[in-house]
Amino acid sequence: MIRTALVQMGTDYDTESNVKRAEHLVREAADRGARIVCLQELFHAVYFPYEMNARHLDLAEPIDGPTMEAMRELARELEIVLIAPIYEKALDGLLYNSAPVIGPDGDLLGIYRKSHIPIVSVPSLTGVEKYYFAPGDTGFITFPTPFDVTIGILICYDRHFPEAARTLALNGAQIVYVPTATTGMSRYLWELELQAHAVDNIYYVGGVNRVGVDEGGSDSHFYGSSMWVDPKGRIISQASDTEDEVLVADLDLSVIPQIRNDWGFFRDRRPDLYGQLST
Amino acid sequence: MIRTALVQMGTDYDTESNVKRAEHLVREAADRGARIVCLQELFHAVYFPYEMNARHLDLAEPIDGPTMEAMRELARELEIVLIAPIYEKALDGLLYNSAPVIGPDGDLLGIYRKSHIPIVSVPSLTGVEKYYFAPGDTGFITFPTPFDVTIGILICYDRHFPEAARTLALNGAQIVYVPTATTGMSRYLWELELQAHAVDNIYYVGGVNRVGVDEGGSDSHFYGSSMWVDPKGRIISQASDTEDEVLVADLDLSVIPQIRNDWGFFRDRRPDLYGQLST
Repeated sequence: MIRTALVQMGTDYDTESNVKRAEHLVREAADRGARIVCLQELFHAVYFPYEMNARHLDLAEPIDGPTMEAMRELARELEIVLIAPIYEKALDGLLYNSAPVIGPDGDLLGIYRKSHIPIVSVPSLTGVEKYYFAPGDTGFITFPTPFDVTIGILICYDRHFPEAARTLALNGAQIVYVPTATTGMSRYLWELELQAHAVDNIYYVGGVNRVGVDEGGSDSHFYGSSMWVDPKGRIISQASDTEDEVLVADLDLSVIPQIRNDWGFFRDRRPDLYGQLST
Repeated sequence: MIRTALVQMGTDYDTESNVKRAEHLVREAADRGARIVCLQELFHAVYFPYEMNARHLDLAEPIDGPTMEAMRELARELEIVLIAPIYEKALDGLLYNSAPVIGPDGDLLGIYRKSHIPIVSVPSLTGVEKYYFAPGDTGFITFPTPFDVTIGILICYDRHFPEAARTLALNGAQIVYVPTATTGMSRYLWELELQAHAVDNIYYVGGVNRVGVDEGGSDSHFYGSSMWVDPKGRIISQASDTEDEVLVADLDLSVIPQIRNDWGFFRDRRPDLYGQLST
């Protein structure tokens, strides 16, 4: 049994203010007993890829920059695992949409970098992420934690790719966190796709979406609705679509091997027939 | 635009009677203008894998046996593409859960053989398919039809494997038919998984489930509820959960390239990161 939390919040253009807001909510999560806490995609910034503007490139920070330093200190103080997704500067001009995972001693357990990068231009939805982010180079790695649970991460658009969700399962994920910034067209897909990943792979899924309208960003309304989904694909709990919120859940990991044995999906896969997926 | 139909029906232990019942419903589908018609999994028989009993092995028929002869004659007469899933005897002792696809001239377009074979023993659900069926050797092939549409097939348990659904898309499927015999536990998953396949792959899905209680079979109630799902994962129409029914739909294939261009999922896949799926 593990207690874990999702943190959804509004943001503005000022990084320090977003970091403070996140700190406040992460403290609330820890106070309520959460041992693993996940923030939303690019939690330290507005969702800037709504437009192509070189000034937003300066929002990227190195992994030893001030935002991550603050998050590492926070994780160490609260003795939690903290997933703190940021705009990561790996090198000048090599920028990623990343999810660093920090351990309870404040050290980095590792970084997942968003693998699938969208560029969309339709009436209800615009996003030019390919201008800002290099496609991630980490693959669908998982993170064993000191709390006897192995976690995986999909960032936002990654959730539309069942190959990614499956590979996390093959790498031992018991909980998959999905930090997101989503709005508009995809509303009715938010539940559907995360529920399908959970039941196809028989693991827990925690979807974290930002909420409200970014101050100093686009005028889109992010619909929050962060949620926990169980390994049979059923929604356990869901946050509001308008307010900052900490969504805490107690997850019973022992049901995972039980359902997997009952259903046999992993026994009955046919890797010999799946070769086209990687060619 | 293609008009196509799903046929759900009850069965008994007598093959001839099931074939007659199917013929009647396929005629109705053709009368209503359907050019492609799909019957349910093992349409010529009860769902015999509820128990392990050697007498059921005799229900298997060669591809040139009487059931397929009748179906080929019917397809030729009605000038339709007919998917007629049967228990196929390839050789003595080599039996498959198959979906032969017949063209409007009565010739075989090809056979898809169920790739994933379950064996389940939980209170609400028992199925010992591994006793009856060899795992399919065809892979996730697709069938170009004379009606300018390419179709693919997943049989029942195959639908729990997103790798299979994706591979059909990579092979050009515009409509995926899912002949099924499902009951019990999986009820709430029926919609969820087919909707997810449709939207992940941006194609139409037609799920066909048998209905009622098999006469001379188990006492399970098959819940019918055959349905059409559009390429955005929305249910278009759904059949009853108790009655024989022909579910006709007019599918606009032109929306597929449009949505795929808008959303970019196929452009943004990362085959370089998916190698673990086939190893």
